[in-house]
Amino acid sequence: MTAVHDILGADVTLDDLPLREDLRGRSPYGAPQLDVPVRLNTNENPYPPPPELVADVTKAVHAAAVDLHRYPDRNAVGLRTDLAEYLAASTGVPLSCANVWAANGSNEVLQQIMQAFGGPGRVAVGFEPSYSMHPIIASGTRTEWLAAPRRPDFSLDVREAASVLRERAPDLAFLTSPNNPTGQSIDPDDLAVLVDAAPGMVVVDEAYAEFSGCPSAISLLGSHGHKLVVCRTMSKAFAFAGGRLGYLAAAPAVVDALQLVRLPYHLSALTQAAARASLRHADATLGSVALLRAERERVVPALAAAGYDVVPSDANFVLFGRFAEASRAWRAFLDRGVLIRDVGIPEHLRVTIGTPEENDEFLQVAADVVSQEIKR
Amino acid sequence: MTAVHDILGADVTLDDLPLREDLRGRSPYGAPQLDVPVRLNTNENPYPPPPELVADVTKAVHAAAVDLHRYPDRNAVGLRTDLAEYLAASTGVPLSCANVWAANGSNEVLQQIMQAFGGPGRVAVGFEPSYSMHPIIASGTRTEWLAAPRRPDFSLDVREAASVLRERAPDLAFLTSPNNPTGQSIDPDDLAVLVDAAPGMVVVDEAYAEFSGCPSAISLLGSHGHKLVVCRTMSKAFAFAGGRLGYLAAAPAVVDALQLVRLPYHLSALTQAAARASLRHADATLGSVALLRAERERVVPALAAAGYDVVPSDANFVLFGRFAEASRAWRAFLDRGVLIRDVGIPEHLRVTIGTPEENDEFLQVAADVVSQEIKR
Repeated sequence: MTAVHDILGADVTLDDLPLREDLRGRSPYGAPQLDVPVRLNTNENPYPPPPELVADVTKAVHAAAVDLHRYPDRNAVGLRTDLAEYLAASTGVPLSCANVWAANGSNEVLQQIMQAFGGPGRVAVGFEPSYSMHPIIASGTRTEWLAAPRRPDFSLDVREAASVLRERAPDLAFLTSPNNPTGQSIDPDDLAVLVDAAPGMVVVDEAYAEFSGCPSAISLLGSHGHKLVVCRTMSKAFAFAGGRLGYLAAAPAVVDALQLVRLPYHLSALTQAAARASLRHADATLGSVALLRAERERVVPALAAAGYDVVPSDANFVLFGRFAEASRAWRAFLDRGVLIRDVGIPEHLRVTIGTPEENDEFLQVAADVVSQEIKR
Repeated sequence: MTAVHDILGADVTLDDLPLREDLRGRSPYGAPQLDVPVRLNTNENPYPPPPELVADVTKAVHAAAVDLHRYPDRNAVGLRTDLAEYLAASTGVPLSCANVWAANGSNEVLQQIMQAFGGPGRVAVGFEPSYSMHPIIASGTRTEWLAAPRRPDFSLDVREAASVLRERAPDLAFLTSPNNPTGQSIDPDDLAVLVDAAPGMVVVDEAYAEFSGCPSAISLLGSHGHKLVVCRTMSKAFAFAGGRLGYLAAAPAVVDALQLVRLPYHLSALTQAAARASLRHADATLGSVALLRAERERVVPALAAAGYDVVPSDANFVLFGRFAEASRAWRAFLDRGVLIRDVGIPEHLRVTIGTPEENDEFLQVAADVVSQEIKR
């Protein structure tokens, strides 16, 4: 290790730099990356990719590596075609390559959307608590963020949300379904009401769609394609968090718009090859989704039986409480070898559904700590 | 193929969407990706990665793929450490992981710099013609772009540039060394004058540094680390254009600043593994740099002997002219199987230095077309 005083330029501090004023005093986003026996904090799929998938990814990367000295296909046509086929098969909506765009994680997809349709002088609205990266990416693109509330039980009041959209007339609206970190989906009929009410673009973030029994917002693209964008990720259901692949379905003109702001060659040849190889094993990875849904249906009543309030979830995580002090309870779980997530909602913590063994350990710890941590 | 009228949402046009006004009418950035026998248009390294490198990348990706269901190391500590070691060994400056940051191509590094230190109400200056992504990324981050001139022979007038920096006092200054698309490096003594003159951050874009005999701006980090950032890429010298890996060297506080704007987990586990494997073969890939420099020293006088004006170059490309009409001359080369680049500089085209065989073909075509395309 290099001693701190030996690091070149260590005498320069952030205060010495002409940083944007609104960034001063902030901390980088991200859950603690701790090495703990049971990690149930970032909604990863706990099942490792099957050996056939690993072999196929390796083979595809080998083939792509021969041409590493050349820039990748800037438009990622093969990958987008494969993603369109997956979405078309799973939703019944006839999507093609022209309807799909992809980037390094759905965060980059969301950032490109805000660069194209948001920015200074424009407003985005979200219904909170929801995915905390939405306002952060809004800030990074200088889009004004308007936080509208959900109900006290974290469900979305559709009538109220529609009037927020009509009255505040945001340039962009973010709807998360299932909602992270609370877990509930928005029915397509309700979504149609919201899209109709919104004067601007509506982004439905479906990062956890495969875990939900609710039909996808993609079913509305035929009727609402002039203002609807549906975001997805391969991080969760496809067990591809390490590969970083987010994507979206929309009208082709939306994809054209994003190509005006995307960095050229943003998606590496290796990412394109590995993601396509992973998609060929969708049956296997989506098989794990069924296991996780079944585990969720086991964990939720067990938590309730142990004395917790549990928020209904369509996703691969569960928000639960009510804790006297969420940060202290988070530490109590961690001290017992189980890493879960303090998402900043008072009295609540979020746990990712893991393997049956991981869930057993979590439930054991949850039973252990309930008496001292729960709010009376 | 899906017929156009069958594509879902094809009736929606860009005019129907609430696109940012300043994007209307623009075209996506990027050189034509054409399948042509001799491709000398995007400054790629023409030598494919050696088989040992391909094998090592494949092995590293295989090892990483086993954990694809988990998010990657958000801070890419291993990769940044390796990059610091490479830079330290090649420049003699004692850099460590804390001095290095990496992203998906130097474009993303530059975007993060502009997000942290630029943005609305702030101004960036560049000395044009230079890398055309600088003003595009400025626009994408809503940073005002101020284009200052280079001399008519494309060299940088250091005294004049210093007074631009003093008088216009930009928040960010971009200096490209060697300059793309014109080829000349900036001497560290001159750079020091420019950094001293600049009140804000100075970004030295050294994408082509390995092709230059000029010492790196990294030698100034010890004395000027409070406002100097040096950007690099693995695309060119490391023959890793397909892998998308850009990086920078700076004071640790600059890296801290970029972590406030980076998207979390922006760098995939596969990218990190593949880049580290490629770096282990630096001797081989940097060996190709010596070949390309020797070829450049052959191509430049041959072009001059054929009747062209050639701009002196320290990089793996050469700007040459003077053409009666650059776009027509570009087409004349393409019609003869050689794809070069029309970079938008009147009367000039840019050619990438290729393999000896590719350069022979290029020089043959250059001799063929000189009489009808050159300006009289």
